[in-house]
Formats: sequence, C-alpha cells, structure tokens
Amino acid sequence: MKSQLHPKSHRIVVLAEGSFGVLESKTATVLVRYLAENVVAIIDSTRAGRDVSEVIGIGEGIPVVRDLGEAMRFQPTMLAIGIAPPGGELPRAWRAVLGEAIAAGLHVMSGLHRFLSEDAAFAALAARHNVVLWDARKPPANLPVATCKAAEVESTVVLTVGSDCRVGKMLSGIEITNAARARGLNAEFCPTGQNGIMVWGWGIAIDAVISDFTAGAAEQIVLEGAKNHEVLLVEGQGSLVHPGYSGVTLSLLHGSMPDAMIFCHQPSRTTVARYTVPLPSLSEMIAQYEMMAAPIKPAKVIGLALNCFDLSEADARDAIATAEAETGLPATDVVRFGAEKLVDAILAVHPAKSEQDSQD
Amino acid sequence: MKSQLHPKSHRIVVLAEGSFGVLESKTATVLVRYLAENVVAIIDSTRAGRDVSEVIGIGEGIPVVRDLGEAMRFQPTMLAIGIAPPGGELPRAWRAVLGEAIAAGLHVMSGLHRFLSEDAAFAALAARHNVVLWDARKPPANLPVATCKAAEVESTVVLTVGSDCRVGKMLSGIEITNAARARGLNAEFCPTGQNGIMVWGWGIAIDAVISDFTAGAAEQIVLEGAKNHEVLLVEGQGSLVHPGYSGVTLSLLHGSMPDAMIFCHQPSRTTVARYTVPLPSLSEMIAQYEMMAAPIKPAKVIGLALNCFDLSEADARDAIATAEAETGLPATDVVRFGAEKLVDAILAVHPAKSEQDSQD
Repeated sequence: MKSQLHPKSHRIVVLAEGSFGVLESKTATVLVRYLAENVVAIIDSTRAGRDVSEVIGIGEGIPVVRDLGEAMRFQPTMLAIGIAPPGGELPRAWRAVLGEAIAAGLHVMSGLHRFLSEDAAFAALAARHNVVLWDARKPPANLPVATCKAAEVESTVVLTVGSDCRVGKMLSGIEITNAARARGLNAEFCPTGQNGIMVWGWGIAIDAVISDFTAGAAEQIVLEGAKNHEVLLVEGQGSLVHPGYSGVTLSLLHGSMPDAMIFCHQPSRTTVARYTVPLPSLSEMIAQYEMMAAPIKPAKVIGLALNCFDLSEADARDAIATAEAETGLPATDVVRFGAEKLVDAILAVHPAKSEQDSQD
Repeated sequence: MKSQLHPKSHRIVVLAEGSFGVLESKTATVLVRYLAENVVAIIDSTRAGRDVSEVIGIGEGIPVVRDLGEAMRFQPTMLAIGIAPPGGELPRAWRAVLGEAIAAGLHVMSGLHRFLSEDAAFAALAARHNVVLWDARKPPANLPVATCKAAEVESTVVLTVGSDCRVGKMLSGIEITNAARARGLNAEFCPTGQNGIMVWGWGIAIDAVISDFTAGAAEQIVLEGAKNHEVLLVEGQGSLVHPGYSGVTLSLLHGSMPDAMIFCHQPSRTTVARYTVPLPSLSEMIAQYEMMAAPIKPAKVIGLALNCFDLSEADARDAIATAEAETGLPATDVVRFGAEKLVDAILAVHPAKSEQDSQD
C-alpha cells in the first residue's frame, strides 16, 4: 500500500491541458495545494504564460507552460496526470505527451481508472527508459474481507464523512492532520482515494476495489496507519445518500470502525451533485451516519467541516453559526478559518479512548 | 448479462467432491433444488452410491457417484463446480477433473472468484474441444455509475433484504417468483449472485463488481428485467449490519430502487455469522432498511421470509407468529409453508404502483 514513488522526493510537472482551474483538473489543484514545493510547472497551452496563482488562487511562483518541451526547462523528474479524461480513455494527444515524458526519463503518476501500467505500449516504453508508471488508483492484490480487526487498534480513528462527493472530505482530513501535528500530536492522514494517495504517498483507492473486499481495504488502511500513529484521520468517500457511491461510503464506515466522525458539507449545496436527490437536513444526515455505525461500532459525529468556498466571508460565518446552532457541534471552514476547533474535538475523544484502552 | 449457456438446456454433472451436503457445497444444493431435471449426477467419492435425497433431503433419483468416469454413464453435457475451494485456489485434484471434463466435451459452469476463462491452460483446452467455460461471477465490462434510472421502470420492483448472509434472500426471491407466476403474474427473478445466475441463466454477480459501479450493476439488472416483466424479485445480498458486505447491500438497495422489500431472516440466528456482531431486533433492522431507502426512493418492508430449517414445525410456527406480532407484517417460511402470503403482500403494492404510473 506504500506507493512505488514518493512524490515529495520529485520535481513534478502536471499535465492539465485545456482544463487547468476547472473541475476536471481537481487533481492538478490538489497537487499544487499540497505539493507546492515539488510542482515545477503546469502544462496547459490555453493558459500558458500565467502564474498558477492567477488561475487557482494558490501556487504563487509556479508557471503555467505551453507544452512538455517548455516544462523540461524546469528539470522535472516526474509527470503527474492532473486531469480526468471524459469517458476514461486517454485522448490521442495525451498519449503522445506521455510517450515523450517517458522517453525523456520522467516517472509518471496517474490516478486514472484505466491503469497505465497495464497499457502494453506504455509499459514497454517505461521498461526501456527505466521509469516507473505509478497508478495511484490500482489496489493491492489479495485484499481480505473485513474482519473487525480495526476495532482493536490503539490509535484514535476519525473518519471524515459527508453529505456528497467533493465537499472536502480529503482536504479536511489533511488539514486536520496538519493542525494536529502542529499541536504535537502524532497524527496521520489515511488516504482512500487517488488524489489523497498522490499527495500523501500511501493508501488504497477503495472505489477501485471489488465490492466484496472494499470494507476489507478500509480495514487494511487503518491497521497500516495505526502501526506508528496515535491519531488517524481516515479520508471518507461519497455519501450515504449518494445513489451511485453510497455502498463505498458504508464499506468505509464499517471497515475503518472509527471512534468518531467529522461531517463535511458544502452549505450552498441542496441536492446530490449530478442527481436530483435532495439532501436531508444536517441533523438527519448526522443521525444516519451514527445509526449506521452503531451496530458494528458506535461512533458520534464530533464536528463539522463546512466548505464555504463559494460564500462571502460574512455568509461563511453565518453558515457556520447556523450549523453549530442546528447540531450543537463545533463547525469551521478548515481552509478559511483553520482546523483548530476540530482538533479540539478530537482531543476530547482521544484521551478518553486512551484511558479506556488502558483499563481494558 | 444473459449467460453464454442456459443450464436448463443441459445435462449437468455437479462436482462436489468431499463436501456434498455441507455448507461449502451450497451451490450443489441450489442446483439440485432448482435444476433437478437437469442434474444427472453429483460427484463426491466420500458419499458415492447414495441417492442425493438421502444426503440433502431433496433430489430423489439423482445418484451420487465416485468420479467423472462414472458420471459419464449419464451422458452429461456440462460440468458445474458445486463447491467453493478454501482460499479461492482450485486444488490440484480438481484441476485434473476439470481438464478431463473439458477433454470429454463438457461445457463448464463455475461461480468461483477466480475465473476459469482467464486460466490460460483451461482456456486453451476449451478452445481445442470447442466447449464454453462460463464464469457466472464474471461481471460484464463497462458497467456505469448508477443514474437513478431504475426509478422509471413500470414494473413493480421488490428487493429481498435480510439480517445476514445465507438467510434465504435468493431462495425467497425464486420461491416468490414461482408462486407469483402460478397466480398468473408475469414475474421475474433478477439474480445478483453466482448461484442465482447459474439456476436462472442471467444476472450480474454484484459482489464481483468494482465498488464504484456496484449500484450501477444493480440498476442494469432492474432495467433488463423490466423489459418484459410486470413484477421483479431482485435478489438481495449481505446485510446492512454485515461488517464485510454492508456496502454491497446498500449499493443494491440504492441501485435497484425497489418499490417494496421482503425481509429475510433465520430466527435462530442472533449474531452475524462468523462475526461477534449481535443482530439488532427485527423492528430495528427493518427500520434501518426503510431509513436508508428513503432519501433515494422510499420503500417499505411488506413481509418477512423466515428461514426455519433448523426448527421443529411447532417452533417454526411460533417463530412466525412472534415475528408477525412484533412487526405487524405477514411472515412465512417459503420452503415449509409456501410463499402465498408474500405474493399477497406484493399484489397489494403492485396495483397501487400501476395506478400511480397511469396517473403520471
């Protein structure tokens, strides 16, 4: 489950041709946010010549360049695929760029559903040039069915859950982990999706696991993280009310067996994205997670991470106050106002678990 | 999703060496129950010479034989693998039997996790002898993420859900389908697991689908069944309180978007099999299914299928009366007392849906 390459030891050029800064290049944005010291350039000919921060508001000093040839001036050692092609097939033009990058000796990091390492042409080329094709989404072989072993770890396990996809479950997990470390806690982020795996260097993309073994994969992630850390922030996926991905969400809840949950939500969202399914109220969604956790291992939602990127600062503060009043739980926007409140909430659970374990 | 072979047009010999009649050969028992006219012999040298009915209580007149050589006297056209090998690997001795069967011109039907059609040696042998290796568990390629299209079918969709694995979700689905057909309803069973697929000749084994597409697979099954049938009995899997398989269960609930559910349970069971997780009360489990269905499409549990195989007739009647009193729902053991009560419950929902559709 450790990655074959660690992105933090590389100089990365990110391929985001034609879509840097829009939803399809979420991976590129995540790489800039969490690997800013490693990303040396973004390839997008339609935005070439601009600074990354002019396009996405972060990443000052990183240039957007026209093509791989221009990017080579920055001596990259790795090409990261920062876009998801529609339909899952690599466009012909990108295949050419990938081939060029491999021939130039760059390792390749990809989160695509279609694995580059299983593409005969790329695999042969990579072998010839002695570079690694790292498919961050490819799950390890021989995952087990879940066995409830995650209940036995000594670490405090916190799962980020949420109302929908793309509300900030990964980002909150990372921000809380970083804030907890700054407070002296031995905390670890446990990635369960390809973007988290790319920036953190380990994990399993559980949405790519065969459904019989998805909870087992979540269990393996917790057992791995618990080897050396006292607090684990497990990255949630999907939502219990998502028509397509709810099964992934429940597998993750039952496989990771958290001690507590952080609920992530975008206050401006009222239906599941791309569906007409209305989102229940915050209290209803929180009750649903707690009810589904209870038969396997009881766990409470202990705080809210609200993604207010599309609200003014005043509206964001209002949304946070409203959510706190409705739920009685501490709430924050971790990007805008920091994750301290949520670290406090975890600390309130953490010693309780430590004491309980020592009494067992 | 239609099978490459239809088992009802074959003379089947079932391989159940060393385990006919015990839990590991559930597939063999299911084949005898639902394909009694097609099964010509069972191979199990440890029980050879007995009649199938002496071993499992059904299948009178079908012989248990020592080996494939003896089974060939009954002119089989297909070998079915009736056992699940521990660890998923085919024992060497079975490989030899499979090779013999293929060389003798028998098609092979398998529900194993490891696909025979992807085994180079078997695939080559099968090509040479012009026989089909049918892996009932192998999902179709390019399954979509669920889109909520199952809500639009005109058929009444009934999902069998339950408290645990192996409580009778497949069997109840088939028995209710058969009873509904006997009452003149154009009903269809929609298999979601390898055993159901083997006896019914179509379906998708959703536990073998990558988790992102599991609900999408359930949706495809409903869309297929709805083409020609007014009532669909969708085979449920696992349980919402199963630590390993709950995600499969929820994917199936949200992907198939049932109009109603039949809850299956074994009254003597108090914990999830192979785990220490206690089962909640019947009412709690029913409420949990209804609550999880509600945000995507509301559906009620309308009847109970109780698996009382390990109870005396008096105790079975007691268990049924107790469950009816607790839940206010009609209950039966479909094998012992028939499925009529549950067909009645479906009929009470079915015209209501038809009327509603015609008013839309």
